[in-house]
Amino acid sequence: MTRYQRLATLLAQRIEQGLYQSGERLPSVRALSEEHCVSISTVQQAYHLLEEKQLITPQPRSGYFVTPRKAAPPMPAITRPAQRPVEITQWESVLELINGRLDRDNLQLGSGTPDVSSPTLKPLWKIISRIGQKQDLALLNYDNIYGYPPLREQVARLAIDSGCRLSADEVVITTGCHEALSVAIRAVCQPGDIVAVESPTFHGTMQILRGFGIRVIEIPTDSVTGISLEALELAFEQWPIKGIVVVPNCNNPLGFVMPDARKRALLTLAERFDAAIIEDDVYGELAYDYPRPITIKSLDVDGRVLLCSSFSKTLAPGLRVGWVAPGRYFDRVIHMKYIVTGSSAMQTQAAVAEFIRQGYYQPHLRRMRQQYQRNYDNFSCHVRHYFPCGICVTRPCGGFLIWIELPEAFDTVRLNRELHASNIQVAVGSLFSASGKYRNCLRLSYAMPFNPRTEQALATIAAAIESAMERCSLLPAAEPGTAQAVESRAGAKG
Amino acid sequence: MTRYQRLATLLAQRIEQGLYQSGERLPSVRALSEEHCVSISTVQQAYHLLEEKQLITPQPRSGYFVTPRKAAPPMPAITRPAQRPVEITQWESVLELINGRLDRDNLQLGSGTPDVSSPTLKPLWKIISRIGQKQDLALLNYDNIYGYPPLREQVARLAIDSGCRLSADEVVITTGCHEALSVAIRAVCQPGDIVAVESPTFHGTMQILRGFGIRVIEIPTDSVTGISLEALELAFEQWPIKGIVVVPNCNNPLGFVMPDARKRALLTLAERFDAAIIEDDVYGELAYDYPRPITIKSLDVDGRVLLCSSFSKTLAPGLRVGWVAPGRYFDRVIHMKYIVTGSSAMQTQAAVAEFIRQGYYQPHLRRMRQQYQRNYDNFSCHVRHYFPCGICVTRPCGGFLIWIELPEAFDTVRLNRELHASNIQVAVGSLFSASGKYRNCLRLSYAMPFNPRTEQALATIAAAIESAMERCSLLPAAEPGTAQAVESRAGAKG
Ligand SMILES: Cc1ncc(COP(=O)(O)O)c(C=O)c1O
Ligand SMILES: Cc1ncc(COP(=O)(O)O)c(C=O)c1O
Repeated sequence: MTRYQRLATLLAQRIEQGLYQSGERLPSVRALSEEHCVSISTVQQAYHLLEEKQLITPQPRSGYFVTPRKAAPPMPAITRPAQRPVEITQWESVLELINGRLDRDNLQLGSGTPDVSSPTLKPLWKIISRIGQKQDLALLNYDNIYGYPPLREQVARLAIDSGCRLSADEVVITTGCHEALSVAIRAVCQPGDIVAVESPTFHGTMQILRGFGIRVIEIPTDSVTGISLEALELAFEQWPIKGIVVVPNCNNPLGFVMPDARKRALLTLAERFDAAIIEDDVYGELAYDYPRPITIKSLDVDGRVLLCSSFSKTLAPGLRVGWVAPGRYFDRVIHMKYIVTGSSAMQTQAAVAEFIRQGYYQPHLRRMRQQYQRNYDNFSCHVRHYFPCGICVTRPCGGFLIWIELPEAFDTVRLNRELHASNIQVAVGSLFSASGKYRNCLRLSYAMPFNPRTEQALATIAAAIESAMERCSLLPAAEPGTAQAVESRAGAKG
Repeated sequence: MTRYQRLATLLAQRIEQGLYQSGERLPSVRALSEEHCVSISTVQQAYHLLEEKQLITPQPRSGYFVTPRKAAPPMPAITRPAQRPVEITQWESVLELINGRLDRDNLQLGSGTPDVSSPTLKPLWKIISRIGQKQDLALLNYDNIYGYPPLREQVARLAIDSGCRLSADEVVITTGCHEALSVAIRAVCQPGDIVAVESPTFHGTMQILRGFGIRVIEIPTDSVTGISLEALELAFEQWPIKGIVVVPNCNNPLGFVMPDARKRALLTLAERFDAAIIEDDVYGELAYDYPRPITIKSLDVDGRVLLCSSFSKTLAPGLRVGWVAPGRYFDRVIHMKYIVTGSSAMQTQAAVAEFIRQGYYQPHLRRMRQQYQRNYDNFSCHVRHYFPCGICVTRPCGGFLIWIELPEAFDTVRLNRELHASNIQVAVGSLFSASGKYRNCLRLSYAMPFNPRTEQALATIAAAIESAMERCSLLPAAEPGTAQAVESRAGAKG
C-alpha cells in the first residue's frame, strides 16, 4: 500500500466510525499534511481516492465534506404468500439462471457458488493427486449404496458441532445436497401430496418438489426468525401436509438463523401433526457466529427429521458430495437412492474424507466464514451507498447470499435482462416462489472477494434499478435516505 | 509352468480338440513318457492333474479314459411372462444383492462389476493424478447441467462406432447409466403409465420403473433374437404403452445381440404405436464381434429413441460417468436431471474425457473384450463340465454375464442362501422380473480372470445345484448328458 492509500484507508475508517460525521467538513489539506507528516500532494491524492469512492464530496472553495450518509435500509417484513397448495412453475427461469453459469464472461452475482480459490483448499488438490498415485482399485468399483464408509464416519463426527449425535450408520452419502433432497422428499411423499415450505424457498427444492408431482404451501417467513409457526399451524389445520422443507440455518435466500426456541417449536408442531421435517443445512457451517447453530435434527427424538446437506457450499460444488441423515426414513431413502443414481462417485468421496481426516476442514471453514463476513461488510456498505431508497435488504447471519426487496411493482426479470448487456447476472426473486411471487426481489451473492469489478457491477445494478424506479415513479417521495420513508414503502410489499 | 503342467495342458488341448475322443482310452504312461521324452512320474503327475479336473477318469487296471463329454447345454427357450401390466416388487432381494458387495470375502459372481485391474486402466490413474496437480478451479465449481463439454464431445465421437451421428449438443452427461435411465424414464412417463420391458430385465431398470410408480408389461424374450416383436405388438394393441425399455446389445442378463433387422422392426413398431424407446447400451461396446453392433438410436429418424449408457462396464463403475442422448425429449431430460442431482461430479468427467482424448480407450476396450471372451470360453467349459444335466445356458455375444436356467421347480433363492456359507454370491433370477418370475434361474458374472478360486466356486455351485435337484427329483431321468434329455426338460420351463 502506498502512503496516500494508507491515509485514505485511515480517513475512510474515521468516516465509517463516525469521527467525521455525515455532511461534516473535513480538515484542510494543509492541516492533514501536518497531522500525518506527509506531503500536500499525498493528502490530495488520498482525498481524490475518497472522492472517487464517493465517501467525500468537494465543494468549490470550501474544501471536502463527508458525503451525506444513508441510513441502512430496513430488512424485509414477513412475507405474505397465498395460503393454499399450488402447483410449482418457474422451471424456464431456473434453467435461464443455471445457463447463465455457462457464460464465463458473466459476473455471476446470481449463483449460489462459493469461492473455490481459497488457499485452504490446496490440500484437496494434493489429496486428489495422491489418489491418482495410490491406485486403490476399490475406488474404481461400485460404491456400496450407503456411501464410502470413511466419509460416513467423518460426516457423523462433523454433525456433533450442530448438536447432533449421529453414528456413521445413520448417514447416507449422496450426489450433492440436491440428491439428498430428492431422495428425502421421495422417501416422505407420494405424487399429489402437499408439502409446506418457507417463502421464499431455494428454487432447487421447489423444482424437486415439482418434479415429483408435489404441491406446496408457501408459508409466510420472516427474514429474522424464519418460517411463521402461527401460519404453519393454520396450514396444518387446514391441509393434510406430509412434510415441511426448511433451511433454518443461514437460510437461502433470506439469510436468517432460526432461533433455537423456534426450531424446538417447529419440531413440536411437526410432531403434533405427524409431519416429517426435511431440514436443509447446506449453509449451516458457514454461520458467522461461533459455535455454529444447532440443527432441528439435534432435537429430534422420533426420527422424523431428515437432515440434508453437502460440501457444495463449504468446500466445492463440483465434487457433488452430499449426505442425508434420514432418521426413520432410512430404508426408503436407500431405495430412492438406488432408483436415482445407484451409488455415488468414489474418488470425490475419498478425497473429501481424507481432507477432513487430515484436519484441513475446520481451518478452511474458519477462513471462509471470515471471508464471507468481510465480503458482506463491504457489499452491504456499497449497497447502502449506491442503491436508491425504497428498498429492503436482509442481514444474513451466514453464507454469502443477500436478498433485496424492491417496491412491489418492480420487475426484476426485466432488470436482469437489462443487466445481461453489462454481463451481470442476478437471481430474480420469482425463482424462489412456486407461483412466481417475489418478482420485485432479487438475490445477490457476495462469495467472491470484493474487487473493483464487483463494485462497478453493484453501481451498474443500482443505476439500472434507480432508472427503472424513476421510469415507473417508484422512488419514494419523501426525503431520500430517511429510514421512515423506506419503511413506509416496505409495508406495501407483497 | 512346470514340465508336468505343460504336458497336462497339451493333453487337455488334445481332448478339447477331439484328438482323444470322449470315452476313449488314453495312451499308457510308458508310451507318453517315450513320446514326450519325460519321466514316468511327470506323466503320472500330468494325468493326476487332468483327473483332478475331471477331464480323464482312471479305470482300475485299464489306465485312463477321456471322461465322457457332455453336450453343450441348450440355450433357454423364449420366456413366457404373464401378458399384463404388473406392479414391480423384489426391492428387498435387490438390496440383498447390492449388500453382498459389502462383504469383501464374498466371491461376487452375482454382481455386474467389470474387471478394473487391467493394466490398460493405468493411464486413468495418471490422469487423475495430473488433475490434482493442474488445479483447474473450474473442476471444483458447479458443472453446467448438460455435462462437461469435452466429455460430451468424446461421447458423441464414440457414438459413431454404433452407427450414430450425434453432436455433442445432443448428449447429456449423467451420474452413471442409472441416472440416465432415471431421467429418461421420467422424461417419457408419468406415474401410473405402462412401460414394456424385455423379460428378464436388469433389476436396476425394474426398480427405477417401480420408484416412479410405473407398471410394466414383461414381454417374452428370446435368448438369441431378443424381445418378441409379435408379443410386443399384441401388448401394444391391448394397452396404452408409453415406452419400451430394451438392452438390445449384449443384453443383461441374456447376452444376445438383437439382429439389425429386428432392431429396425422394433423401431417401426414403436413408431406405429407412437411409443418412446429407452435403449440401454451399457454393454454395447463389449460385444465380442468387431465392429460393434449398431444401436436402435442409429436408425431413429424422429427422436423417439433415448439412448442411455455409461462407462461403468467399459471403464469403471466407481466413476459414475454415464450419459443419455434423449432425442426429442432433451428438454424434459434436462429438467429431470436438475431435479435428480443438479449436476454431475466434474473430476471424474474430466478424467474420462482425457482418457479417451489421449487414445487409451480403444486399446482398453479391445483388451477387455478379449479377456471377457476368453473368460467366457473357460467359464462355459467349466459349467458344461461341472453342472448337472437338465439346465439351459445362454451364449452371450458380449459383456460378462451368463444366465442359467434350472428346472422350473428349482429355487435359486434357497441356493443362494446355501452358497452364502461358502462365500459365494450369485444373482437370483427373480430379481430380473417385476413379479418374481425366474426363481429357477441365476445370473453369473465371468468378468474376473479365471482362477482356481473361480473354478472351485463353480464346482461348489454345481454340487449345490445337483444335490438340490436330487433332493427334489429334478434330475432328468434319461441318459445323463444327451442333448435330447436336456431339451425335453427345457421345454417344460416357465
Ligand atoms: C438451500 C440449498 N439447498 C441445496 C442446494 C444444493 O446443493 P448441492 O449443490 O450440494 O446439490 C443449494 C445450492 O444451491 C442450496 O442453496
Ligand atoms: C443393463 C444395465 N443398465 C444399466 C446399468 C447401470 O449402470 P451404471 O452403473 O452406469 O449406473 C447396469 C449395471 O448394472 C446394467 O447392467
